[in-house]
Order: sequence, then C-alpha cells, then structure tokens
Amino acid sequence: MRDNPSMEQTPAIQDHYPDDVSHCYGCGRLNDVGHQIKTRLTGKSTTTDYTPEPFHTAIPGLAYGGLIASIIDCHSTGSAAIFAMRRSGTEVGSEESPRFVTAHLEVDYLAPTPLAPMHLVGTEIEIKGRKVVVDTELSVNGVITARGHAILVEMPDGLIIP
Amino acid sequence: MRDNPSMEQTPAIQDHYPDDVSHCYGCGRLNDVGHQIKTRLTGKSTTTDYTPEPFHTAIPGLAYGGLIASIIDCHSTGSAAIFAMRRSGTEVGSEESPRFVTAHLEVDYLAPTPLAPMHLVGTEIEIKGRKVVVDTELSVNGVITARGHAILVEMPDGLIIP
Repeated sequence: MRDNPSMEQTPAIQDHYPDDVSHCYGCGRLNDVGHQIKTRLTGKSTTTDYTPEPFHTAIPGLAYGGLIASIIDCHSTGSAAIFAMRRSGTEVGSEESPRFVTAHLEVDYLAPTPLAPMHLVGTEIEIKGRKVVVDTELSVNGVITARGHAILVEMPDGLIIP
Repeated sequence: MRDNPSMEQTPAIQDHYPDDVSHCYGCGRLNDVGHQIKTRLTGKSTTTDYTPEPFHTAIPGLAYGGLIASIIDCHSTGSAAIFAMRRSGTEVGSEESPRFVTAHLEVDYLAPTPLAPMHLVGTEIEIKGRKVVVDTELSVNGVITARGHAILVEMPDGLIIP
C-alpha cells in the first residue's frame, strides 16, 4: 500500500466485474488500450493510483483536465461498487461485483496537476437504494490538485447492447 | 456545417491558440496522438463534432463517461475563448486566441451515449472579468445524452512550465 506498507493490499474491484461490463476505456480489465485503473478499499476509504502517459498533457508538464475527470469518474464508479458491497457485508473478490454508472460528475480543479503519478482517495458520502454518492481527492506528490463529487447509480438491467 | 450546409464554416479556435498552449491531449493541434477537437462559432452558439474511436467504450456500444467529460471540457475551454473574443469584438483567426483553463466542470449523464459521432453545442451563460461560464449539450443522432456546465478562467501568466 502507498500510505502504509504494512497493510495487506485488498483486491481491486475492477478485477471482479462481470466480463460483459469490463470493457470500459477507463477501468475495464478487458480493454487492452485503456487506462485499466484499479480501485481498492484502503481502510475506510477507496484508493486508486494512476500514472499518466507523457502525451496526456494540458500544457507541457501538466495533466489535461479531461484525464483528471476520467480518472475521477472511473474511480468513483469503482468506489460506489466497493461501498455498496461493504454496506451489504460482502467482501470484494468473494463474488462478482455490482457495476455502477455515473449520473452526475463534478470536478473542481484547484491547482495545476503535474503530469506525474496521481493518488485518488474516495469517501462514501451517501448510499440510498441503488444510488451512491462519492467524493474524491486527487493528489500528486501529496498535494491535492482536484476534487470530485459523483452520483453513481447501480447499472439497470438491459443497458448492455448485445 | 452540420445544421445548415449553406453557412460558411468559421475558423476553429484551436487552430489559433499560441503554439506553447497547443499540446492539450483533448484539443491541442500539436498533440499528435490526442483528440484534436475543433470548436467553432456557429450562429450564436459554439459547436464541436467528434467521432470516438472503437475502443472508447463504456460497455460495448456505448461511449465511456470520461471521454464525454473530456470532450465537454475541451469544448468548454474553446467556447470560452470564442465567447470572450466575441465580447471584445475580435474575430477568431484575426489574432492569437486567448487560452482558458477549467476551474469547475459538471456533467449530467442523461442517457447512455452511443459510440457514434457526437455533436456538441455550447451556450454563453456569463462573462465576468477573466471568468466565462459555458453550458453544453452533447447529442448523438439528434438525441441529447449529456449536459455540461463549466466555469473557465483565462489562463494566468506563469502557468507554463518551461
């Protein structure tokens, strides 16, 4: 673990999504060219670590805002699944994970984000029925540069196009 | 033009950014592997047309939310520059364009977005000093699937890292 090397690393939620919902460019383990982010329960929060590519620039040296929004978005959907499983007393990895989609996403860009490894921490704000609200702090080198607020909804049946 | 073939196509704002702020993965003309979106003044609004790649999937057949946020974000920064130039009576292409960065981005995902050509329309909500507020509607095949709300700020001097 990044913050506490003595802690055992928990399973990544994205490794336990059903195959037919694992093609997301941001977080799908079956998308060979995507970001393939991994989100884990770390203590009471969720964490994702992601290293951008050199071409993910805003202006040289800084990460572009769309990438930041993308990583916060997929971290939030993963966090929602983790928090929903925790609420139901189910451990990540013990069965297929539920899959959440984003209804509303907000990002506050607090400061320029260096093009360097990003660390995201997600907090459960609310769970109500199929809806989960997640707040996220994105930091680089220990400095918080962006905050996310997302409303996620468990994926309805029938969304998958055969 | 998409909506009115008889209208003359106006210059894209991204083709007139200064070189040193033209490397954005979303909209920089000098980023060879990026999306290179183009935003134009079309009547009273701004428009961007973007065709996603086959791998930009959420679940198969649908575009992933991070891409939608990214394209809305860069469309909004471009729109802010266009609206600021309009306010000052300057035509896009007559001089180097101002460059805006995002302070706050919101996206409402109204419906699944098919993985197909996207059409974005931006509306000027407010201009106040260096701040511009832009709302965006993103549609595919004439159906609005996402709405954006962004607060953009003209890039401060000194943000560029040499």
